[in-house]
Amino acid sequence: MGNSIGKLFTITSFGESHGRCVGVTIDGCPAGLPLTEEDIQREVDKRRPGATVAATTRVEEDKVEILSGTFNGHTTGAPICLLIWNKDIDSSEYEKMRFLPRPGHADYTAFIKYGRFNDFRGGGRFSGRITATFVMAGAVAKKLLNLISIEIIAHTIEIGGVTATAKEPDEIRGSVESNPLKCADPEAAKEMDRVIEKAREENDSVGGIIEGLALNVPVGLGEPVFDTLEGDLAKALFAIPAVKGIEFGSGFSATRKRGSENNDPFTIQNGQIVTVTNNAGGILGGISNGMPIVVRVAVKPTPSIARSQETVDMQKMQSASLEVKGRHDTCIVPRAVPVVESMMAVTLCDFAMRAGLVPEVIK
Amino acid sequence: MGNSIGKLFTITSFGESHGRCVGVTIDGCPAGLPLTEEDIQREVDKRRPGATVAATTRVEEDKVEILSGTFNGHTTGAPICLLIWNKDIDSSEYEKMRFLPRPGHADYTAFIKYGRFNDFRGGGRFSGRITATFVMAGAVAKKLLNLISIEIIAHTIEIGGVTATAKEPDEIRGSVESNPLKCADPEAAKEMDRVIEKAREENDSVGGIIEGLALNVPVGLGEPVFDTLEGDLAKALFAIPAVKGIEFGSGFSATRKRGSENNDPFTIQNGQIVTVTNNAGGILGGISNGMPIVVRVAVKPTPSIARSQETVDMQKMQSASLEVKGRHDTCIVPRAVPVVESMMAVTLCDFAMRAGLVPEVIK
Amino acid sequence: MGNSIGKLFTITSFGESHGRCVGVTIDGCPAGLPLTEEDIQREVDKRRPGATVAATTRVEEDKVEILSGTFNGHTTGAPICLLIWNKDIDSSEYEKMRFLPRPGHADYTAFIKYGRFNDFRGGGRFSGRITATFVMAGAVAKKLLNLISIEIIAHTIEIGGVTATAKEPDEIRGSVESNPLKCADPEAAKEMDRVIEKAREENDSVGGIIEGLALNVPVGLGEPVFDTLEGDLAKALFAIPAVKGIEFGSGFSATRKRGSENNDPFTIQNGQIVTVTNNAGGILGGISNGMPIVVRVAVKPTPSIARSQETVDMQKMQSASLEVKGRHDTCIVPRAVPVVESMMAVTLCDFAMRAGLVPEVIK
Amino acid sequence: MGNSIGKLFTITSFGESHGRCVGVTIDGCPAGLPLTEEDIQREVDKRRPGATVAATTRVEEDKVEILSGTFNGHTTGAPICLLIWNKDIDSSEYEKMRFLPRPGHADYTAFIKYGRFNDFRGGGRFSGRITATFVMAGAVAKKLLNLISIEIIAHTIEIGGVTATAKEPDEIRGSVESNPLKCADPEAAKEMDRVIEKAREENDSVGGIIEGLALNVPVGLGEPVFDTLEGDLAKALFAIPAVKGIEFGSGFSATRKRGSENNDPFTIQNGQIVTVTNNAGGILGGISNGMPIVVRVAVKPTPSIARSQETVDMQKMQSASLEVKGRHDTCIVPRAVPVVESMMAVTLCDFAMRAGLVPEVIK
Repeated sequence: MGNSIGKLFTITSFGESHGRCVGVTIDGCPAGLPLTEEDIQREVDKRRPGATVAATTRVEEDKVEILSGTFNGHTTGAPICLLIWNKDIDSSEYEKMRFLPRPGHADYTAFIKYGRFNDFRGGGRFSGRITATFVMAGAVAKKLLNLISIEIIAHTIEIGGVTATAKEPDEIRGSVESNPLKCADPEAAKEMDRVIEKAREENDSVGGIIEGLALNVPVGLGEPVFDTLEGDLAKALFAIPAVKGIEFGSGFSATRKRGSENNDPFTIQNGQIVTVTNNAGGILGGISNGMPIVVRVAVKPTPSIARSQETVDMQKMQSASLEVKGRHDTCIVPRAVPVVESMMAVTLCDFAMRAGLVPEVIK
Repeated sequence: MGNSIGKLFTITSFGESHGRCVGVTIDGCPAGLPLTEEDIQREVDKRRPGATVAATTRVEEDKVEILSGTFNGHTTGAPICLLIWNKDIDSSEYEKMRFLPRPGHADYTAFIKYGRFNDFRGGGRFSGRITATFVMAGAVAKKLLNLISIEIIAHTIEIGGVTATAKEPDEIRGSVESNPLKCADPEAAKEMDRVIEKAREENDSVGGIIEGLALNVPVGLGEPVFDTLEGDLAKALFAIPAVKGIEFGSGFSATRKRGSENNDPFTIQNGQIVTVTNNAGGILGGISNGMPIVVRVAVKPTPSIARSQETVDMQKMQSASLEVKGRHDTCIVPRAVPVVESMMAVTLCDFAMRAGLVPEVIK
Repeated sequence: MGNSIGKLFTITSFGESHGRCVGVTIDGCPAGLPLTEEDIQREVDKRRPGATVAATTRVEEDKVEILSGTFNGHTTGAPICLLIWNKDIDSSEYEKMRFLPRPGHADYTAFIKYGRFNDFRGGGRFSGRITATFVMAGAVAKKLLNLISIEIIAHTIEIGGVTATAKEPDEIRGSVESNPLKCADPEAAKEMDRVIEKAREENDSVGGIIEGLALNVPVGLGEPVFDTLEGDLAKALFAIPAVKGIEFGSGFSATRKRGSENNDPFTIQNGQIVTVTNNAGGILGGISNGMPIVVRVAVKPTPSIARSQETVDMQKMQSASLEVKGRHDTCIVPRAVPVVESMMAVTLCDFAMRAGLVPEVIK
Repeated sequence: MGNSIGKLFTITSFGESHGRCVGVTIDGCPAGLPLTEEDIQREVDKRRPGATVAATTRVEEDKVEILSGTFNGHTTGAPICLLIWNKDIDSSEYEKMRFLPRPGHADYTAFIKYGRFNDFRGGGRFSGRITATFVMAGAVAKKLLNLISIEIIAHTIEIGGVTATAKEPDEIRGSVESNPLKCADPEAAKEMDRVIEKAREENDSVGGIIEGLALNVPVGLGEPVFDTLEGDLAKALFAIPAVKGIEFGSGFSATRKRGSENNDPFTIQNGQIVTVTNNAGGILGGISNGMPIVVRVAVKPTPSIARSQETVDMQKMQSASLEVKGRHDTCIVPRAVPVVESMMAVTLCDFAMRAGLVPEVIK
């Protein structure tokens, strides 16, 4: 229960890290959208571990298959099922630590909630691998948003305390794929690399912050009082493992500003009402105001670390220690960047549909 | 669209700031819960402007009425409708600035979304007054949570840059109502008062941070991958006007920690598995882990300020300036404290029901 | 739980037969619809007991109030709350038979489900009076459907075995209000009246069949495979107390036809594709096909009858007999006619919105 | 949109008749249910065309695969994805009649709704083959219901005007699988066979009525006023192609009874409150009353018939005639029997969960 999200563009995630596959169904995609496996593969590949020390060495082929919902290269209006078969699976390490919950992971809570039936192998449903299903759905959402000119860009703005210099959307779009850290500031990216390498050498891990931008969003998306743009984006983004904080616009720093500083004055630019600043992050009263939507996502340091940690043996109910073996990202942040984009896309697509901006059939 | 929240404990908010009333229906409350108007009044009164410079001078009587769903002082299993009739309304100021959107408010987005039909008076649906409907629903949710020993406490931890010293839950519970700022640190509260008074004198406003705690939450609440505890709490909390950021446990500060620091080691205490630290804020993998749930909510400075601000005349499409008159809180934070509690209660109540912890009839 | 229906046009019913009021909230109505209390009153009055022996003598003033969601005589896009205060209530008879469940009523099931907390007075949530909330919501839905030229007409086609001659929509529209039985065949209506009168004299009751028509429905409403037009209409109509069967087009009689008889051949009329016959009742594959939607609703005989009936005393767990006193309709069918119209309107309005036929703001 | 059903036990159907596969995801199944591919295969095989003239000659292997949600032969609490790969597909006939909508089919409505993108091959999403996804989900629901002793039995009670003699549940259970018509009355079954054979010889088809029974249902399932047991069962059953009518208990025949005849008197039997008769079909006020739930489902004659029919060419907009070739069931009723069972099981499972009768983990 709880594996679907979206009211009109509804995705349902399924599959496990070490099961047969990971997959997603999408219900509500209009008919007529050109869609091929390549379209989705391209997005999924962005999640692939890069040539950086940050990433796991697991070889994930992650070959996307469309099981339903398209015909002659276009969506049909029927539910779309997208699938990746799992390969390269070795669950032996997990078997050993079955009753030793890894600190910072869902092992303990899942064991209590689902009992001995929980599929613990590779983290099961709680693995980062599940985010591949988000990215597949996001690929479809992005194509739909593209039709109404909405663009989503996410990028790394901080890792292990190293912050990137702020950039304009054009710069970010151009440089985010230029380094494996998906950071638009190449100098900062180098320093981030060093911080990650150092953590890796010390059998430790680091976290960071991802910024997501939605550009060209028309005024009027969001359905308050409960289905606010902030609220639904936050809910979607908290589905990404390791996310522990979300803020929009000036966010937490707004709490130290005066109202006169934080309010964004309105003005007219090219015949359009805009705000002079964007402390609101593009959202007023839970509704898009036409400015770029700006969200920042706090990603905790990867909980899987190679050094010994204190835990308990849940079966024997006694203290134990644990070294998490296997292949893990020292820093998950860069690989989460396309996932942030995807969950933003899925959410905005749903709101665009609720506002009647997406036709039932794309001509 | 978008005025309901909750899957099994579903609340629907209605009413406008300057309309006839504000109200809420609650569908899904079990039969047998003792419930009187006084129970709800008590919570609603906490939202009442205190004897502090922080608060508006509007005299809100806010007399709660139960319209349906109870019989002989107990809930019946039928939907509960709770209502407060509006009084003391003067909409004349709003009429004057009808086409002058207030910076930082929803005036502009609502005008574009709903056109000239939007009820702009007093902010309509976007007014802080709508949160009275959240508090009414929260009062019922708290009574239900009380049956399973879950306690929710929120308190002010920062205003205008002044931070309160961290306290234990027992201290917070005891002192949060001791000052109108709802801050458990009396020394900090005094300093916060000064900061607010200064802002008020300068026709400005300040924001702050509220911390919400949920104590005694059993392991297992939360329905990943999408209906995570963080995600649904965040969605519910972003429904509160002026909230621009949410974080759990170590939150944004986790991004600057190493995994070895941020992971909470497991240990055994009184025969129970607990974590030594609580950087996770009581949530692992989107599911409660038995530790206190800790959420921090960033509240922006009140957008209504008495000084002149730049805006545009939406009718004439030209620049304009605006002074927001009327009665406004210099700092909305203290009044948002019971609202944070309420939205946490509503969300946790829903998850408790989803986990089967609340019986269909309370005996 | 279960008191809301509709995905985009969502209504939530509340209130009890002998409580303070009955009411409904409507979330999802676009801004800009002209709406006054008179608009809704007109529909609610159709439910009022007529000058016929069929109806109860309870004087229901049923004065509709709009509590929220309108401003200057138009909807605002905010949730609409509509209310009728209860008057003329005498619960003494119900108190006496509190533990004696009336055969054919929900007394027994409600007692088991909600325990001693169930509001049994006047049938509580299970009273026909609750359908006033359906009619209030239906009044708004009808106004919206009217904007896209969809018309809903329901009429009595059978009572106590007396069947009305089939008529064309134009005849039905013209004559349905001409007699209190809401039957478009005046001769049959007279005979129905006799049958009802006879049953009343014998302290008994009769049932009947209502036919609902939706005219001018565009091709394409319905969202298979689960949200079919038949399925969602049926669900909405089964919410009306005493409804025990639903059929579309040739319905149950189709089961005795050959495919060659029951299939509706396609042809072209005035440049439009239509079917020659309408055995499908306007629905193919769960989607409207442009022909009139035809649904028939079986209403059981009123369970409240003045003669003695066998029951059990639920407290003493022994056999008992019961005479239902109070004011009851000998035949509920005519009063259910506007309720059938309302639930059809609410459902079709939701599907029209899902198909993008209703704008977010009505200009 | 519209391919999910169920609030707590939520199934999402996907796949097309002539696409790669048909499948279903199930979200909300508790952990700990023993579940193998054989369990589901057994139910799916019941849908397989029998050795009767009634059925298509298409060889459907229909080999079920579990893609997710189980581990070591038990459900894990994660979403279950079940799949059947399509084989033996020949779409050439459909290509030819692409613009010639078959009378009684969804070809026309789907073409208008989804445009030229609709996957028309084999009826696409509107094919009876999609009901294999219902049966897969139903297999899981039945296993869950079995845990709380609820049993579902469906059987053919009428075909082409031939009616079966009423039987007791024990007789039905024992004999329903004894003939390919799934009729518990062997004599009637023989006559039904003759009627079907005659229709087949005349290139025509026949319909019929299926009765569904739910036995041992506890008092209290159903969530009025909108989520009634009748309403949600009806909605689920109308998802089955060719269903045009639903009735409960005495159903349409109740409309010709007096209240004194149709009311079911209460009595005490073995210390339990029961009703003497069951005209209510086990449901009072939308809630189960402990008696067998009895629903009858009207299935129209198969629209695919081999004789020439009038239609229109949607491209040329002119009259045309059409002979539906390919392999089609002369009577779809027997193959719909397990589908009726499945949709009943899925619905009752959801209500059992809503009533808290199914634990989160099955021990």
